[in-house]
Amino acid sequence: MSPDSTPSAEAAAAAAPTTRGPASECSGVPSRPTPQPTADAAPTIPATQEATAPFSFTITSRCPHTRARCGCFHTPHGPVHTPRFMPVGTAATVKGVSIPQLVETGAEMVLANTYHLSLQPGEAVVAEAGGLHRFMGWQGPLLTDSGGFQVFSLGAINRIDDDGVVFRSPRDGARITLTPERSMAIQMALGADVAMAFDQCPPYPASEADIAAACRRTHAWLERCVTAHDRPGQALFGIVQGGCYPALRAESARVVAGFDLPGIAVGGVSVGEPVEEMHRIVRQVGPLLPEAKPHYLMGVGSLREMAIAVAQGFDLFDCVLPTRLGRHGTALVGGERWNLRNARFRHDHTPLDPSCSCLACRLHSRAYLHHLIRSEEMLGRSLLSLHNLTTLLRFTTAMGQAIAEGCFAEDFAPWEQDSPAAHTWTLPSAPTG
Amino acid sequence: MSPDSTPSAEAAAAAAPTTRGPASECSGVPSRPTPQPTADAAPTIPATQEATAPFSFTITSRCPHTRARCGCFHTPHGPVHTPRFMPVGTAATVKGVSIPQLVETGAEMVLANTYHLSLQPGEAVVAEAGGLHRFMGWQGPLLTDSGGFQVFSLGAINRIDDDGVVFRSPRDGARITLTPERSMAIQMALGADVAMAFDQCPPYPASEADIAAACRRTHAWLERCVTAHDRPGQALFGIVQGGCYPALRAESARVVAGFDLPGIAVGGVSVGEPVEEMHRIVRQVGPLLPEAKPHYLMGVGSLREMAIAVAQGFDLFDCVLPTRLGRHGTALVGGERWNLRNARFRHDHTPLDPSCSCLACRLHSRAYLHHLIRSEEMLGRSLLSLHNLTTLLRFTTAMGQAIAEGCFAEDFAPWEQDSPAAHTWTLPSAPTG
Repeated sequence: MSPDSTPSAEAAAAAAPTTRGPASECSGVPSRPTPQPTADAAPTIPATQEATAPFSFTITSRCPHTRARCGCFHTPHGPVHTPRFMPVGTAATVKGVSIPQLVETGAEMVLANTYHLSLQPGEAVVAEAGGLHRFMGWQGPLLTDSGGFQVFSLGAINRIDDDGVVFRSPRDGARITLTPERSMAIQMALGADVAMAFDQCPPYPASEADIAAACRRTHAWLERCVTAHDRPGQALFGIVQGGCYPALRAESARVVAGFDLPGIAVGGVSVGEPVEEMHRIVRQVGPLLPEAKPHYLMGVGSLREMAIAVAQGFDLFDCVLPTRLGRHGTALVGGERWNLRNARFRHDHTPLDPSCSCLACRLHSRAYLHHLIRSEEMLGRSLLSLHNLTTLLRFTTAMGQAIAEGCFAEDFAPWEQDSPAAHTWTLPSAPTG
Repeated sequence: MSPDSTPSAEAAAAAAPTTRGPASECSGVPSRPTPQPTADAAPTIPATQEATAPFSFTITSRCPHTRARCGCFHTPHGPVHTPRFMPVGTAATVKGVSIPQLVETGAEMVLANTYHLSLQPGEAVVAEAGGLHRFMGWQGPLLTDSGGFQVFSLGAINRIDDDGVVFRSPRDGARITLTPERSMAIQMALGADVAMAFDQCPPYPASEADIAAACRRTHAWLERCVTAHDRPGQALFGIVQGGCYPALRAESARVVAGFDLPGIAVGGVSVGEPVEEMHRIVRQVGPLLPEAKPHYLMGVGSLREMAIAVAQGFDLFDCVLPTRLGRHGTALVGGERWNLRNARFRHDHTPLDPSCSCLACRLHSRAYLHHLIRSEEMLGRSLLSLHNLTTLLRFTTAMGQAIAEGCFAEDFAPWEQDSPAAHTWTLPSAPTG
């Protein structure tokens, strides 16, 4: 079995956080290398911003065996401790989850979608309310995407050219133009802590020529975004594209990094490509990103993929899957997906995930959740969404803790060649005992 | 305008609790009569049970001008302070409301539906879980209805006779028989604090002969329920029927009261009759109920009707309306029903109800709730349900406080002839200033 073998990596990544206690298993193992203190690591890659600036990223610990790091991204609405999953609140609400419940998941930065909000209620209404934080009642850090992903994936596109995108509104058929300047204007009106550059994100598969064209446009648009963006207290992140073509990825990483923005994202993954392609992109691009900036891998939120990406120096993740799965009655438990509608849960009066302390697991049983899902009750969808978010937040928190304690490579990235546990992955088949 | 005039009574009942502060407005008004101390009132109607028994009802204050009283119904899962609205949790969940949120509404006793739970998940599953409290995670008092109302209103009835009711399951068409003994068996398996007798509740209108037959059957079934019911720690309440026929109501009240159960309910209201008929029934039957027992008016939960009923000595209420309205985007504010989908809320950035401290009002604006409802977001339905429940709980709590402070008749029942405010209702038209 190769070190990159997908099922085994999944098992390792999934098993670690759901079975480990708070930090205790991470100490006292003789073979574990001493964690490298932050002070020693800092001189290698000096931070480019002060921790007191409106936006700064402080790396507090590094894994001695992989590129994994944990740190803190400071925003005007508070710190984001990385690595960290970011729940998606498309229409200024994380579906089915109240604000106090969202706080309980451990979420620090929450996403909202520029495309959806510009159509309903419209950015003017949000601005009128005093911005997105006040509009939705979330006082922590917020990030808005650029709207580009939705336009390319959902919209009935009429025309794409170097100026921007023309599409038909799904609400009333109206002709809408989205350009880098318009995306910036909407995002500045929404007033999240982080705005994303307007990029062209082609679906998979696409020819090298098409991806190259999308990259050229993405880079030109990034320049226009930088020029158009002038909201104090809001950071702009650039997005690396390049599809599955290593040369285009390298070139895009170089160009986007050159803008020296407070953060950098990798897009064009999780767009339909095989998962091995995604791993390859993550492994190639991670090391090309400027180390002192937070690295955001867009649209990725499965345990294994987040662990692989953290090992390559990624810090932030988002994905609609935990809430979408929850709404459809599926719970993430022990690295597996459980369909709670299944009859095997009818008489199972144990907690959903005994290792989890979310409301669903603390107060309710599998049999009750099964009953709620069978009865099409809102509460069932809401509790499972809450649990799934909690699971991803717990997982990224556990990775951060492991990095700080020097056991990330062993517990979360045993497949990495430099991991103290790498020997468990070099055999033709993984040992069972 | 007559003292019973519906619109004016509504206005008075609605205005009082939403504009009054906590107790302060209730003191220092010279014309207000001194509240009659509980000790003075007690000898008139001695309590039949000790406050320390598993089920007992203690009257703590009485209104000197109406039959209103406030008290405490003690159950094995804690006290229920009356008068009090009881949220309906049909399928062992108050739709869209989590258990911590339900606690925040001020709810003390919660309903669940025997009919629904016997079909899904089945009472055996609930019993297996250790009963309804543990199954749904609600540790406060619970009450289950008898299933009769649903059978008569929802079910495809095949046959009703003196034995019971045969109907087709809406799930799989199976032939199901519900009898007093079966209803008791299900409710004992569910294990709520209060079980309701299996009654026949005819829809409105019905002939006097039909109602008389339903009453005879209800009384015979009550006797069988009493015989069949033997779960310690669970109280059985009888139900008065009689439709809109005063003689039948009086006879039913006499017969049901004769069983001397820990509580007594009035059913067969809110079944399609004009609201004036309901008021008439409430005014006739209230004084006929045994004073020392808690009085439960089934299926009623509008502000005006609860105020009228409290003035006639009713203590407990339930209704699906607050959650059903909430799910459909309607909020109860200041005695009115507001459709939050309405465009007039689009730019309204004020709190839903500034006098309310529920999550929806504390954290969100009308514009945000409008946006959630327009976007068909679960959170909108859930927040409005929460607000509506909070409003009814607040209203019944405010009535209890007014009773304790001696200002109930003035603030909540000015139309009652003995109210200090009765003169405001005796003019041909209500004064405007």
